[in-house]
Amino acid sequence: MLSVELICVGTELLLGNIVNTNAAYLSRQCAALGLSCYHQSVVGDNRERLLEAVRTAVGRSNIVLLSGGLGPTQDDLTKETVAEVFGKQLVEDARSRMRIADYFSGKGMKVTENNWKQALVPEGCTVLDNDNGTAPGILIHENNTHVILLPGPPGELIPMFENTVLPYLKKMETGVILSKTVKICGVSESMIATQAAELIETMQNPTVAPYAKNGEVHLRVTAQAADAETAEALTDPVVRRLQDMFGDDIYAVDTDDRETTLESSIAALLTAHGLSVTTAESCTGGMIAARLVNVPGVSGCFQSGYVTYANEAKERMLFVQKETLEKYGAVSPQTAAEMAAGAVRASGADVSISVTGIAGPDGGSEEKPVGLVYMGCQVDGKMNVKELHQKGGRARVRESTTAQALIFLRKCIIERYGLPG
Amino acid sequence: MLSVELICVGTELLLGNIVNTNAAYLSRQCAALGLSCYHQSVVGDNRERLLEAVRTAVGRSNIVLLSGGLGPTQDDLTKETVAEVFGKQLVEDARSRMRIADYFSGKGMKVTENNWKQALVPEGCTVLDNDNGTAPGILIHENNTHVILLPGPPGELIPMFENTVLPYLKKMETGVILSKTVKICGVSESMIATQAAELIETMQNPTVAPYAKNGEVHLRVTAQAADAETAEALTDPVVRRLQDMFGDDIYAVDTDDRETTLESSIAALLTAHGLSVTTAESCTGGMIAARLVNVPGVSGCFQSGYVTYANEAKERMLFVQKETLEKYGAVSPQTAAEMAAGAVRASGADVSISVTGIAGPDGGSEEKPVGLVYMGCQVDGKMNVKELHQKGGRARVRESTTAQALIFLRKCIIERYGLPG
Repeated sequence: MLSVELICVGTELLLGNIVNTNAAYLSRQCAALGLSCYHQSVVGDNRERLLEAVRTAVGRSNIVLLSGGLGPTQDDLTKETVAEVFGKQLVEDARSRMRIADYFSGKGMKVTENNWKQALVPEGCTVLDNDNGTAPGILIHENNTHVILLPGPPGELIPMFENTVLPYLKKMETGVILSKTVKICGVSESMIATQAAELIETMQNPTVAPYAKNGEVHLRVTAQAADAETAEALTDPVVRRLQDMFGDDIYAVDTDDRETTLESSIAALLTAHGLSVTTAESCTGGMIAARLVNVPGVSGCFQSGYVTYANEAKERMLFVQKETLEKYGAVSPQTAAEMAAGAVRASGADVSISVTGIAGPDGGSEEKPVGLVYMGCQVDGKMNVKELHQKGGRARVRESTTAQALIFLRKCIIERYGLPG
Repeated sequence: MLSVELICVGTELLLGNIVNTNAAYLSRQCAALGLSCYHQSVVGDNRERLLEAVRTAVGRSNIVLLSGGLGPTQDDLTKETVAEVFGKQLVEDARSRMRIADYFSGKGMKVTENNWKQALVPEGCTVLDNDNGTAPGILIHENNTHVILLPGPPGELIPMFENTVLPYLKKMETGVILSKTVKICGVSESMIATQAAELIETMQNPTVAPYAKNGEVHLRVTAQAADAETAEALTDPVVRRLQDMFGDDIYAVDTDDRETTLESSIAALLTAHGLSVTTAESCTGGMIAARLVNVPGVSGCFQSGYVTYANEAKERMLFVQKETLEKYGAVSPQTAAEMAAGAVRASGADVSISVTGIAGPDGGSEEKPVGLVYMGCQVDGKMNVKELHQKGGRARVRESTTAQALIFLRKCIIERYGLPG
């Protein structure tokens, strides 16, 4: 089995200014490919310590992934240091130079001199295009070791990894790794861990691994086999058992070439039933709408949404009664229901989802504490209301409420119209 | 200056199942104490690799912080391995045994046999109480090296660090570290690197380090000194030089106990001038409004926003002319301007920011490619329009557009009303 090692470069990691999400992302990708990762390290932008780290890694691992330190400043010296380890000169890559020029002219900006540094690459390497920034990636294959340099910003690293590194690593594998991800929403992680305990704890091939994220739990079923057909035969019975366990709470079963999100599954559900949805948001302030607009081509089922943070806006835009606000307060089931009804009336959409809550840190009381949220969902004239008690700070309350609103919306639509056949 | 090194133990980190937030937390705490952190590593629950990592760390750093691997299972062997490095036996700590018994009886549970393993500690060490779990922490001080073992769960690690380790490390300090972060928006990273090159490359005390993120660059000015006053005297002239260089593009100068965001600085700017803002969003679909609502108490200057993804919604909610949409298209400077004007008219706000663009992956043409975005900003009756050419996928285009819209909004307000005195 091939071994892989990560070296994340950046003083900002050593100072704790940013969390090393790249390491988690890359580890997970490598695990899914069946590569063994025994070492991860973080070093600063320092030539000596980086030299030592790269030499150690090259000496003990088949594949070394480095992230960070490819930028235009003097601080950035990952490329220079790796070139030194392999005794290579840096030479200018004409294509990268052109892409840097294009990138800046596209933004209507002049290229400053230090940016051309990013077009320098170790001689004989493979250059990996960066579609989201100016620093290209670099792949060096020497003496059976593969060293791959990726930019530090996740918005550049992730697409580059998926477009160029993943296909490269997949070719190195022997046999097939097949993963199917069963995506569940609205069921707690501990409930899923209990129900699926036997599968998670005892299965060897396929393995079943849970990943929890904001209202969702993904169960990843991974089989290793000589060919795709055998791998399918291993995963499919386990996927079916999970489908029997969790039923309609599963919003997608994805393979690795397909990424269904909760919002894209909702858009598909709306489209299948010929429905449109609108949003009426107070404390989430546009986050539910923004998640729907994550879906390309969503305009077929989402045309407009309302952000009504102030009471006056709830009255003006969503026809919430002044008396309702005075009698029950802005954070009440009554207001949530009137917001959802008003959004349907104002927009002409078929379905609506509304949210009103106390995100904190201020504004809470004994009767209505921070984290109290009401959601309304009108489907085919029927109003559904739900109360939530969220934990955490303002950001956490809003993120979690956004997820719960989408889950509630999905559930109300399915209750009325069912899942498409 | 004392050096510190982190070793995070856990196969779940190597598999990418969890993000290493402990490393970020501990690094940041150590940086604030003025300890130099040059190395962080992650190893699995494996005796040989852990032995190697601990020996290397003890050989090169004054303080070694380990997290994880203190639990009751056979997998957990951090304590055993560190004891082996120092040639120490494990002995039972009576107080820890009692606390474990109390912990379980408090939950009305019986102690299972494997839990007593957690009361074993290396002879002669200092035991650190765990108020939130069963595994005590351990502190070994030998030959001028301090090795500290902490439990892996952040809910146990953080309180233990703050209650026991922090006071211990503070006693070891000599002097203070002061950081001021100059936060700049709307100027490219390379432009800043060029203008501030001399400061970034040559300053030793204070140091100046750049961090780029989505339309912003933060320059962190960090001084070490015997006392706070001396540290201020070192940082302040450098901060003033940066203020001279970047002027109004600086939206905040933060110390570590204050976190100003771009959106909170805009809310403060609006409040200072007694203005309110509204949003009119197409491709960003609520993301600009959501960023404004990140700010607690923003209702004083942000009451409502419009998500108008479909043309019909732009007409209905924002009074965009059908003829404008037909003649110039939804993605045009004319539509952006009418959206911004209509949002002011519909909401009664003083200022508006609008966005319309092609986020992709579909919908682009040769004339209007994916990434083309227009923004409108009406301030005191004056319309400002700006064109952007964004790179990257749908998510990246929308994130970047959201940041650029906030920067444009800030700029237009300052042009008309100035910065508050």
